[in-house]
Amino acid sequence: MALATLQKPLCRRLALVGVGLIGGSLTLALKQAGAVGEVIGWDRDAVNLQLAVELGVVDRAAVSLATAVADADLVVLALPVQALAPVAAELLPHLAPGTVLTDTGSVKESVVTAIEPLALRFGCHFVGGHPISGTERSGAVAAFASLYQGKRCILTPTSATDGAAVALVTALWQAAGSAVVQMDVRKHDRILAAISHLPHMIAYALVNAVSAYDQYPENILEYTAGGFRDFTRIASSDPVMWRDIALENRAAVLEMIAQFERFLAELKGDIERADGAALQAFFRQSKISRDAIVQSAVRGE
Amino acid sequence: MALATLQKPLCRRLALVGVGLIGGSLTLALKQAGAVGEVIGWDRDAVNLQLAVELGVVDRAAVSLATAVADADLVVLALPVQALAPVAAELLPHLAPGTVLTDTGSVKESVVTAIEPLALRFGCHFVGGHPISGTERSGAVAAFASLYQGKRCILTPTSATDGAAVALVTALWQAAGSAVVQMDVRKHDRILAAISHLPHMIAYALVNAVSAYDQYPENILEYTAGGFRDFTRIASSDPVMWRDIALENRAAVLEMIAQFERFLAELKGDIERADGAALQAFFRQSKISRDAIVQSAVRGE
Repeated sequence: MALATLQKPLCRRLALVGVGLIGGSLTLALKQAGAVGEVIGWDRDAVNLQLAVELGVVDRAAVSLATAVADADLVVLALPVQALAPVAAELLPHLAPGTVLTDTGSVKESVVTAIEPLALRFGCHFVGGHPISGTERSGAVAAFASLYQGKRCILTPTSATDGAAVALVTALWQAAGSAVVQMDVRKHDRILAAISHLPHMIAYALVNAVSAYDQYPENILEYTAGGFRDFTRIASSDPVMWRDIALENRAAVLEMIAQFERFLAELKGDIERADGAALQAFFRQSKISRDAIVQSAVRGE
Repeated sequence: MALATLQKPLCRRLALVGVGLIGGSLTLALKQAGAVGEVIGWDRDAVNLQLAVELGVVDRAAVSLATAVADADLVVLALPVQALAPVAAELLPHLAPGTVLTDTGSVKESVVTAIEPLALRFGCHFVGGHPISGTERSGAVAAFASLYQGKRCILTPTSATDGAAVALVTALWQAAGSAVVQMDVRKHDRILAAISHLPHMIAYALVNAVSAYDQYPENILEYTAGGFRDFTRIASSDPVMWRDIALENRAAVLEMIAQFERFLAELKGDIERADGAALQAFFRQSKISRDAIVQSAVRGE
C-alpha cells in the first residue's frame, strides 16, 4: 500500500541514531510519506552507516554523534535497550532546547525513568516509544518502508511529558502507517513480557535444548519441517538486543517465565498421569485462544 | 511443481481410512501422479467423507470399514495415533491375504508393535510410515496435492517386515513427491519428540499461560504481532491428534520436556543473576543453530 504524502513535513531535520531494521524502516517510511525534510544518520558501525546512505535509509551520515544531532528538531534513538540511556546522556548536551527525543526500545520503564528527567534538565522532551513490529533480521540492509504499515506503536508518556512532543511523535508513527496507542510504562513492560519477551526466551531455550540432544550421530535438526522452522524463527533474532531486553525487563520476564513454567508443569503432569481428557482439554483451550487471534487479525483489529 | 505421471499405477485399488489433511493430501497427490487405479474412502465422520468425495479426495465413499478395504490391494490408515491399532484389528479380518497396510501416525513404536504381528497373523503386511509434513488445519477440506512435495517421509520397517511391501509404500510416497528414509521405530519416536512433539507441547503451554495472564482488563492477545502468531501457529493443531501423540510417545515426550526445562532453568538463572555475557552467549548459540536450519533448507537438504 502506498503511503499518503503529507502536505508539509512534520520535522525539518530528523537525526536517526542507530540505522538498523527498526530505525531504518521508520525513516524509509517517513521519507516516502514526505514527512521529514532531511534525515541524518549516525551508527557506531561505520560499514552499516555507509550502507544506510547507499540504500537511501538516511540522506547523509554524520561524522559524530554530536554533529548528527546538533541541528535536528527530532532525534530518534533506535538502539539496543541498554545503549539508550548512555547514548541519550552523551547527546543531550548537543541538542537545541525544545528538541524532541524519542526511542524505539522494547522495554519502557527503565528507559523512560532514566532519560525523561535528563532530557528535561536540558530543556528537551523525551517520549518513550515502541513499535510492535520487526523481523528476525537486523541492520540497515534489512530495513523496508512498509514494516510499520497497519501495525501498532505504543507510546508511554508520563505526567511530565510535553503534550506537543507526544503529538509530534504520534504524527510521525501515523505517517509511517502505524496505529498509535498510549500506555503506562509498567503495563507496557508486563504486556510485552507476556506476548513477546517470553516467547523469545522459550524459542531460544527450545532451539538450544533440541540442538543439544545428542543421542544420535547426525544433527537431528536436519529432520525438522516447516512447523519447527516457523516456531523457532524468532530464535534467530539479534542476541545483543535480546540480552538487553532480558536484563532491562528482568522482573516482568521472570514473572512470565514462572507463569509459563506452571502451565508446562500442569501439562507434564497430565502426560505423566496419562490423563487423556485433561490433555485434550488443555490443547483445546489453547487452540480456541490461538484461533481467536487469527480471527481478530482477519477482521483487521 | 507438477507431479510426474507414472506409466502404470502402483496399486489398483487403495483404501483410505480417515480422509483428513494427511490421508487426503496423499490420495490427491497419488491421483494427480496416476499412481493409483481407484481410491475408496472411509471415515467415521459421514459429513467429512461426503466432502472428500465432492472434493475428489477419494473416488467414492464406502458404506462401512469392511467394504472399504475388502477388495483393496493397499490400505492407508490416516487416523489419530490411538485409533490406529483398534481400527487395524477391526479391518484385518476383511483383507485379502498379501494386502499391504500402512499408516501415517506421528508415533511409531507403539503402533508398529501393536499392528505388525496382528497383520502377519492374517497373512498381510504392515509398514509403519510417517510423512514429516502437515499444517495446523484438519479435515478433507484442508487436503492439497502438493503437501508432500520435497518433504521427508520416514518408514519404520522391522526385521519382520516384507521387503516388497516396503518397496510399494516407498514408491507411493515418492510418487507423492517425498524423499523416503528408513529409521528404527525408537529412533523415530525420540527424534520426533525433540523436533515436533516438544515444540507442540511448548506452544500449547505458552498460549495457555499468556491467555491466562489477567493483570489487565483487556485481552492482551490483542497486542500480539506477527512474531507471536507465527510462533504459536502449531497451538491451533488438532487437540485429539495431539492428545494421542502425547500419550503414545509419553516417555520420549517427557524426556524432551525435561531436557527443555533444564535449558529454560539455565536461561532463567542467567536472567536472575543479570549475567549479560551468559545471556548473549545463550542467545547467540541458539541463533547459530537456527540459522543453520534455514541455510540447509535454502540448499534444499
